[in-house]
Amino acid sequence: MAKELKELTPRSKDYSQWYLDLVMKADLAENSAVRGCMVIKPYGYAIWEKMQRQLDDMFKETGHVNAYFPLFIPKSFLSKEADHVEGFAKECAVVTHYRLKNDPDGKGVIVDPEAKLEEELIVRPTSETIIWNTYRNWIQSYRDLPILVNQWANVVRWEMRTRLFLRTAEFLWQEGHTAHATREEAEAETIQMLNVYAQFAEEYMAMPVIKGVKSASERFAGAVDTYTIEAMMQDGKALQSGTSHFLGQNFAKAFDVRFADKEGKMEHVWATSWGVSTRLIGALIMAHSDDNGLVLPPKLAPFQVVIVPIYKGDEQLALINEKVDGLVKSLKALGISVKYDNADNKKPGWKFSEYELKGVPVRLAMGARDMENNTVEVARRDTLTKETVSCDGLDIYIKNLLDEIQANIYKKAFDLRAAQTITVDSYDEFKEKIEEGVFILAHWDGTAETEEKVKAETKATIRCIPLEGDKTPGKCMVTGKPSAQRVVFARAY
Amino acid sequence: MAKELKELTPRSKDYSQWYLDLVMKADLAENSAVRGCMVIKPYGYAIWEKMQRQLDDMFKETGHVNAYFPLFIPKSFLSKEADHVEGFAKECAVVTHYRLKNDPDGKGVIVDPEAKLEEELIVRPTSETIIWNTYRNWIQSYRDLPILVNQWANVVRWEMRTRLFLRTAEFLWQEGHTAHATREEAEAETIQMLNVYAQFAEEYMAMPVIKGVKSASERFAGAVDTYTIEAMMQDGKALQSGTSHFLGQNFAKAFDVRFADKEGKMEHVWATSWGVSTRLIGALIMAHSDDNGLVLPPKLAPFQVVIVPIYKGDEQLALINEKVDGLVKSLKALGISVKYDNADNKKPGWKFSEYELKGVPVRLAMGARDMENNTVEVARRDTLTKETVSCDGLDIYIKNLLDEIQANIYKKAFDLRAAQTITVDSYDEFKEKIEEGVFILAHWDGTAETEEKVKAETKATIRCIPLEGDKTPGKCMVTGKPSAQRVVFARAY
Repeated sequence: MAKELKELTPRSKDYSQWYLDLVMKADLAENSAVRGCMVIKPYGYAIWEKMQRQLDDMFKETGHVNAYFPLFIPKSFLSKEADHVEGFAKECAVVTHYRLKNDPDGKGVIVDPEAKLEEELIVRPTSETIIWNTYRNWIQSYRDLPILVNQWANVVRWEMRTRLFLRTAEFLWQEGHTAHATREEAEAETIQMLNVYAQFAEEYMAMPVIKGVKSASERFAGAVDTYTIEAMMQDGKALQSGTSHFLGQNFAKAFDVRFADKEGKMEHVWATSWGVSTRLIGALIMAHSDDNGLVLPPKLAPFQVVIVPIYKGDEQLALINEKVDGLVKSLKALGISVKYDNADNKKPGWKFSEYELKGVPVRLAMGARDMENNTVEVARRDTLTKETVSCDGLDIYIKNLLDEIQANIYKKAFDLRAAQTITVDSYDEFKEKIEEGVFILAHWDGTAETEEKVKAETKATIRCIPLEGDKTPGKCMVTGKPSAQRVVFARAY
Repeated sequence: MAKELKELTPRSKDYSQWYLDLVMKADLAENSAVRGCMVIKPYGYAIWEKMQRQLDDMFKETGHVNAYFPLFIPKSFLSKEADHVEGFAKECAVVTHYRLKNDPDGKGVIVDPEAKLEEELIVRPTSETIIWNTYRNWIQSYRDLPILVNQWANVVRWEMRTRLFLRTAEFLWQEGHTAHATREEAEAETIQMLNVYAQFAEEYMAMPVIKGVKSASERFAGAVDTYTIEAMMQDGKALQSGTSHFLGQNFAKAFDVRFADKEGKMEHVWATSWGVSTRLIGALIMAHSDDNGLVLPPKLAPFQVVIVPIYKGDEQLALINEKVDGLVKSLKALGISVKYDNADNKKPGWKFSEYELKGVPVRLAMGARDMENNTVEVARRDTLTKETVSCDGLDIYIKNLLDEIQANIYKKAFDLRAAQTITVDSYDEFKEKIEEGVFILAHWDGTAETEEKVKAETKATIRCIPLEGDKTPGKCMVTGKPSAQRVVFARAY
């Protein structure tokens, strides 16, 4: 790849194109031959694996286990929960046949009309229905509760306008589905998982989030309450990064899932579901990256350190290889992932820009002078700064540097959000300010009508009613009616 | 669950029913509401996670990376490789529509006839076609090779007769798809991955396997050569446990994937693919388990040790809890996974039979007398033997015991196979002996006709032409024609 091929459209010129350039050129993903479905390339998938491993550990620490439910959902199941079918019917991939046969008129194959399914199957857009139909057989008594199950899976929602990672017809995700004896326990689970997501976003993705509850019109189809974490991208738009739903008894009633409580009385079971998806990779990119490429937080980088030798001739290289060998071992011993790129068919300059594009947090370069002086050049991806550092104690230095980079990336995102979050009291001011790419804290009268009006006139939606922060009541900026607290408005992905 | 509910049909009475009883009662999997699709329950999924983690490490150690390709395959892609479409067309789930709408005549939803896809999509039965269509854009020059990619995914093959884990319409698997500049390199990759599978089967699943090549009629649809590992189940039937395919240039030609070699000449790329699936869980069960339940090799057991306290009153329990606490810590420090089950709503006897059913390799029981004597009762699942052991140095004792159990389970399976593998030279003897549940080493003339005749008359198939062992030529047991070496015949799952 020539240098110019790596160049990205600058963010200031076209943020959307910059994003797509970056996803493609950093080898994260690409569009496939199937409309709306992406290919997640090895480097992009490696980031997803890091996310999965960490989230899975956090789910297990909070008592959850994994299981796997069918890809297909009988069409009749979807209809059982009224809001649910309303929400998903319009974007369902439908399997109608189970066999192909040779085309009698041609060379290819056609669908065999004799192999029509009695009942059509939906490729799961989410699994509440098939799972609650299963739970009916798993739950008889309070002793069978709680059920704390998570599933890692692919899901399909036939979106008409797709964008790599952010909105695709097929995506990868996890979906937790829990069953509880009481409302209180289910509500506590909903909040617990919201907190797990927030912790993951902030500590691992280095991405500050606002925790809140969705307005009724933005709720998951079938939920009583939807909780969300909302993050600000660099263009000031919001990205919903994870949701946790309190489902009440809706699915238990739809699928007749009841349990005998301690007194032997039959009650419907209480439910939650919660999920994050490969969309998080899109969030990670848009939260931190720059015009030179990806900026990855060390905790999610496929490799945290890359080492590039700068040499003339095999003899020099052999000496550097030997020195690097020891360094790699000591870094690995500290749990740091390292790639040593001594491939001889690429020049150092090419490698530098390649690893910058790929967002490797720390790049070490070692040349003849470094060998003489027992030093190495250390370059940080987040600040694009370089310094020459002694090889003595370098492993500990790098370890601390990675922590510093992780913290710095978070701080940068936090400061951006702080600078671009404003409080507004008049709708006129709102309409003006929303154009600048900001989160606006404003009062709202709680009605869907006002929410819809704001959306139609400004393209801004209520991202959430925040759980933390200022809870002072006031008056709706649009109608002047009473408002319990300020809510977060923004344009969103 | 009452004791009797845990009882399994004995193997001697009905091996097939024993298997299904075990899968259901040990909470491994169950049939779902969707024909042929299973629900993998948490305990079954935990075994799959152990398998995945180990295989994934082995793939990465051999230089492979993971990626993800679309669930759907355009119908026209399947037709591009003639043998491939022939092999899979009859079992394809076909997506024809992308939307549902409210039924104007009823309460439910119907497929929206206006939302018909221009080209039908097949739910992947395997991904060679979509992947090779993608590789066309990834490969221009020899510098882009090799590509060493693996995918963890679900696939669908519309099987008419299904059995939990062994044959299901949807299953989970991994599929490696590699691209190489030369035939030799692709062949070496094919064999390397066969060896990885054999090592995994023997060292982790404790299941001896025969490595070999498939006869032409048992080849993967689209392969030049299919290599297999074949294992013997306790009823003497064979189970194909993993396959590695040398695909030649078939898919490169079908999808026009060429590269410029070092001289600038355009050549078609050489390919391999290889996979194992959740079928391995079925193999694991049938290879080792007994009439009391699962017998899991320690390396794949979700937890390796369970500790059950035997006590009267809270005071005694508190003392045992304290002692067990230290023991758990020291076991975990040695990398041993432990569950301490001090739940007070189940009796020790219930717990003993539960963990026997679940195949936990080692069970420790600690009661009042053990507390006095500083001992614990150690029960082995594989031999169903018990002994009283001092608590001093117990952690090391358990660690060694787990190794011993792993080795013993392997030895048992190895000895069974040795005892039930025979050499036969006459077809009459073959027909008699095959009824006994054995692997038969016999000469074969290499023709599909003879293979088909044997299959039709005895239900035995050629499992493989073994790579190792006796290579002496001889005469076909059926036709008397020349045979290059003995091959393995058996009835199979």
